[in-house]
Amino acid sequence: MPLDHDVPEEPAPAPPPLRAAEPGARRSAAEEARTLVAGRNVGTLATLSADGHPWGSLVAYGTLHDGAPVLFVSRLAEHRRNLDRDGRASLVVAQADSGSDPLAAGRVTLAGVAERPAGERAAAAAREAYAAAVPTARMYESFGDFALWVLWVQRIRWVGGYGRMDSASGDAYAAAEPDPTAAAAPGAIAHLNDDHADALLTMARALAGHTDATAATCTGIDRYGLDLAIATPRGHASARVGYAEPVSAPGGLRAATVELARRARAALAPTG
Amino acid sequence: MPLDHDVPEEPAPAPPPLRAAEPGARRSAAEEARTLVAGRNVGTLATLSADGHPWGSLVAYGTLHDGAPVLFVSRLAEHRRNLDRDGRASLVVAQADSGSDPLAAGRVTLAGVAERPAGERAAAAAREAYAAAVPTARMYESFGDFALWVLWVQRIRWVGGYGRMDSASGDAYAAAEPDPTAAAAPGAIAHLNDDHADALLTMARALAGHTDATAATCTGIDRYGLDLAIATPRGHASARVGYAEPVSAPGGLRAATVELARRARAALAPTG
Repeated sequence: MPLDHDVPEEPAPAPPPLRAAEPGARRSAAEEARTLVAGRNVGTLATLSADGHPWGSLVAYGTLHDGAPVLFVSRLAEHRRNLDRDGRASLVVAQADSGSDPLAAGRVTLAGVAERPAGERAAAAAREAYAAAVPTARMYESFGDFALWVLWVQRIRWVGGYGRMDSASGDAYAAAEPDPTAAAAPGAIAHLNDDHADALLTMARALAGHTDATAATCTGIDRYGLDLAIATPRGHASARVGYAEPVSAPGGLRAATVELARRARAALAPTG
Repeated sequence: MPLDHDVPEEPAPAPPPLRAAEPGARRSAAEEARTLVAGRNVGTLATLSADGHPWGSLVAYGTLHDGAPVLFVSRLAEHRRNLDRDGRASLVVAQADSGSDPLAAGRVTLAGVAERPAGERAAAAAREAYAAAVPTARMYESFGDFALWVLWVQRIRWVGGYGRMDSASGDAYAAAEPDPTAAAAPGAIAHLNDDHADALLTMARALAGHTDATAATCTGIDRYGLDLAIATPRGHASARVGYAEPVSAPGGLRAATVELARRARAALAPTG
């Protein structure tokens, strides 16, 4: 089995940095998965039909503190009858706003075993998790044919669009944290590109090693740093610049980015 | 197994028409499914892992003339290795714009068996179908690790949001036609509600039997007719009013709706 796509001609490689630069840290596959799952409330569940055929269906979900998805399923649903027979299941959650290219969307598969919560305390936690994520949940709570299920995650497969993908264990998924800055990221990207092109260019020159950069735009931002698209006379490059510390609160991107810009300016300033 | 949700208290029923009215025709489950599948190019595929665990993953797809989905899958993808072992699969396609309530979205599960196209002619048809639906397809055509697969549909399950759902055979799905007016529907609904509230009210009174209607809005439109939400002094009702003939072309909604409004006015006009 090939380890990479079997491509007839490789495209021209991006220009390397002119000065050695340590690439900034990125979220792990488990962190990407937790962030994606925390940001949505609908996915596609794969279960097993009576004859062993794989069956897919849309479900709403909430999540427990360890990221385990909680479902609330009617006896009328085919996937409920499947789970009653065999709890093995996968849940696929995809990024909502994938643009025109469907395969550029981030998505994750959580594979595991679905079980009814054991005991009143576990049921209450599951009920709360579902109601917190699904606005219509309270409507169905009194329906006698609905029941809670928790998908205990055994392994995950994350695909972050083209070229970025990884697997992780259920334990790594449970231990990881959703990125607290995810909801603020789109606004932060727009603000940096609209009002701080100069700071991004300084970061590209001083921190990403592209000392000949002529322009830079921010293409991604998260608790660990920024993704930059960099124009140079040698061609287009991309780079990752990292924050001094991971951002730990939803409102923390601004201060971390200001520190990054200051560090970049200091690195470029003439010494002596 | 209950045939309906197990609800403790039924909500107040909607007021019935005051005059007998034949409800307009609706799309069949197979037609809904063909329309949904034709309108998107991304879904979630359920396949079987080596150990029999159901596995879900995001895929782009095109469709053959009979609605059979065409996939173009790398050997790097876990679902490709699953299909190589066992072609049994389901594809879930969901409406893109479901609003804030995830379970209000229309969606369909196509269950069947995936096979590589047999012969060069079938492969060419599959290649064209995929390229017509997926803008980036040409990029991968030369990649040696990608291969075409066709999902031969054996049965479908369609859910049209709350309360509307049905199953159909693979033959019914293949024989049905995607609604040619689907892309024009959102614009037509907005236009009717913005500029023709009077005509909608006349339809509600004359064709839906709600002779005491005080207002009506269009909530849906398709090749067979209109869905109306109707206000009356007795409460809120919904109704379906049907076109004289199914619309057969993308641009045909206007003429059919004009005929419907004319019929409604004629029915209300004083006789003698």
